[in-house]
Amino acid sequence: MASTARFEVVAIGNAIVDVIARADDALIEAEGLTKGSMRLIDAEEAGRLYAAMGPAIEMSGGSAANTLAGMAALGRRCAFIGQVADDQLGSVFTHDLRALGVAYETPALKEGAPTARCLILVTPDGQRTMNTFLGASHLLEQAMIAEDWIADADILYLEGYLWDPPLSRAAMRRAIDVARGAGRKVAFTLSDAFIIDRHGDDFRALIGEGLFDILFANEVEICALAGTQDFEAAVAAIAPRVPLLVVTRSEKGAIAVANGERVAVGAEPIDTVVDTTGAGDLFAAGFLAGQAEGRSLADCLTMGAVCAREIIAQVGPRAQLIYQQVVQQKLMPMNNATQMTEDERALIARWYQAGAPVQ
Amino acid sequence: MASTARFEVVAIGNAIVDVIARADDALIEAEGLTKGSMRLIDAEEAGRLYAAMGPAIEMSGGSAANTLAGMAALGRRCAFIGQVADDQLGSVFTHDLRALGVAYETPALKEGAPTARCLILVTPDGQRTMNTFLGASHLLEQAMIAEDWIADADILYLEGYLWDPPLSRAAMRRAIDVARGAGRKVAFTLSDAFIIDRHGDDFRALIGEGLFDILFANEVEICALAGTQDFEAAVAAIAPRVPLLVVTRSEKGAIAVANGERVAVGAEPIDTVVDTTGAGDLFAAGFLAGQAEGRSLADCLTMGAVCAREIIAQVGPRAQLIYQQVVQQKLMPMNNATQMTEDERALIARWYQAGAPVQ
Repeated sequence: MASTARFEVVAIGNAIVDVIARADDALIEAEGLTKGSMRLIDAEEAGRLYAAMGPAIEMSGGSAANTLAGMAALGRRCAFIGQVADDQLGSVFTHDLRALGVAYETPALKEGAPTARCLILVTPDGQRTMNTFLGASHLLEQAMIAEDWIADADILYLEGYLWDPPLSRAAMRRAIDVARGAGRKVAFTLSDAFIIDRHGDDFRALIGEGLFDILFANEVEICALAGTQDFEAAVAAIAPRVPLLVVTRSEKGAIAVANGERVAVGAEPIDTVVDTTGAGDLFAAGFLAGQAEGRSLADCLTMGAVCAREIIAQVGPRAQLIYQQVVQQKLMPMNNATQMTEDERALIARWYQAGAPVQ
Repeated sequence: MASTARFEVVAIGNAIVDVIARADDALIEAEGLTKGSMRLIDAEEAGRLYAAMGPAIEMSGGSAANTLAGMAALGRRCAFIGQVADDQLGSVFTHDLRALGVAYETPALKEGAPTARCLILVTPDGQRTMNTFLGASHLLEQAMIAEDWIADADILYLEGYLWDPPLSRAAMRRAIDVARGAGRKVAFTLSDAFIIDRHGDDFRALIGEGLFDILFANEVEICALAGTQDFEAAVAAIAPRVPLLVVTRSEKGAIAVANGERVAVGAEPIDTVVDTTGAGDLFAAGFLAGQAEGRSLADCLTMGAVCAREIIAQVGPRAQLIYQQVVQQKLMPMNNATQMTEDERALIARWYQAGAPVQ
């Protein structure tokens, strides 16, 4: 049955512009960074690291916003809530989201901090090391959360990264109450192990209260949440406590567990890992789009895996329209058309028709 | 003999950030644009068109700045003079140029106009339609032109686009005098036919005074300058009046004429035209790098053609480090290594070693 809600998903997340540059392993080492991780940096460090980085391109990002960008491209009705400043990068973020058809009306912050940015170093192995200056993004106040949107969206999707700053944490806590009060579902993505290190008790308490209907995690995160290094033990510990648990496992694919039923899919084959930025974000986009279409868990996982594959084969966490030709002619998926399933072919066809990301 | 000047080239040009989005032909038509052309727009039109555009990526641009970016990647000593505002896009432009090793010290404008941007619509045929909001860029004053740099650079390279605004025109006119007074060469690129429509008399007068040592043009521009639609007639009219004339001819290659000697090269073969933005800029980069190395006209033309080919095979007018893998594995030139000449192979090898653009 098709949803009658205004939005299928409303998300709260970081409103952030990515600054993406190629880097060699020597720079990662010289800066003392942990490859593949995300860390928070202050304005001073952001300035210093930026000066040490090579020439970059700027592109709208943010984990939950990337997910919505992917969902909008799949034809879903989405809205975003997140804080930018009244500056040029804020205009860029706002433009790019709206141009994709995502509703976004959070008023820009007039003073206090500039728009958030994430300095992303992409190494030759395709891994991305992220250095996030949260700026205005962490100043999202409770008053900004557009309760009417949340009450009129099938799913409220929350980005774990925003649990760290006290202001935005309070705003998200309020958003959960609004969604549940309106009989809506709440989905939460754990985002990063360091978030769980700091707020694992919060998350376990929220799960204990039954406030999360869908929980997204990767292998590292689910283990951190369960307090074990054993993946199966972690799944066994967490799955019974949430209606739907979704765990991505990089090259090992992904699983979903609901009502004791466990479904797994393998990762989609890929020739060249160009940049893993946004793989988890786009997996969630495909999975949630499948949910909105009322599909089976297996189908939702497959849609997630296909979206993740597409984003890994290009630079940046949002599929860029302008790379259509490169992707089409040089990468996926048209060259591999005969290896695709019917469902994948239909999904790809929709992307192309939509004239929107993940092309 | 190697140059002893501080810089091999100092360029004056637009300091501009490109905002690049894919567009279909319908949008070009609906906006009444001439595909493949450049037009100037005001702040209001820039805002309106931006709102109508799809999601974009931001990347530093500017014709002469793109040329220097390419030259720096080829190991040449370069400096840039151009006006940004004290805003986020100005910081992006400044960072990207310096990160390439190009000297750039023009103080940012504190008020009056924001940093220039060029809204670039890339259609499926790889053509780019440019809509330039000049902002701070056209407010380059004579006081900003760093006469000591100009006096200590082998070649002063001027971008025709900047001849339009009165302030920057006066600054460039002064720069020419400084360069000539110091016994340096002056190179000028005509940039666009609309510039010649408005300032052809100026250019013909400057040529008549013997102030240009090297003149860069494409077919349309040289014909506009000569006031004829016949390419050969145009070359015959202009070539005797400048020490070195260089004309690019898209898929027909390029020619150089000096002292009555005319040399031609064909265009480099290319599988897929992704985006022609910057082809002329990067041709100039290759050609001028060849000049700095004291190479023959034929070698200089070949270097220009190879640079142009590389930039056409990717999105945007500056070769992006981060696309190294895509270019390397999916596009040029490693797949075609057996078809390359020794000179080309050496050029490509240097690009890769430089860890810099045009990879």
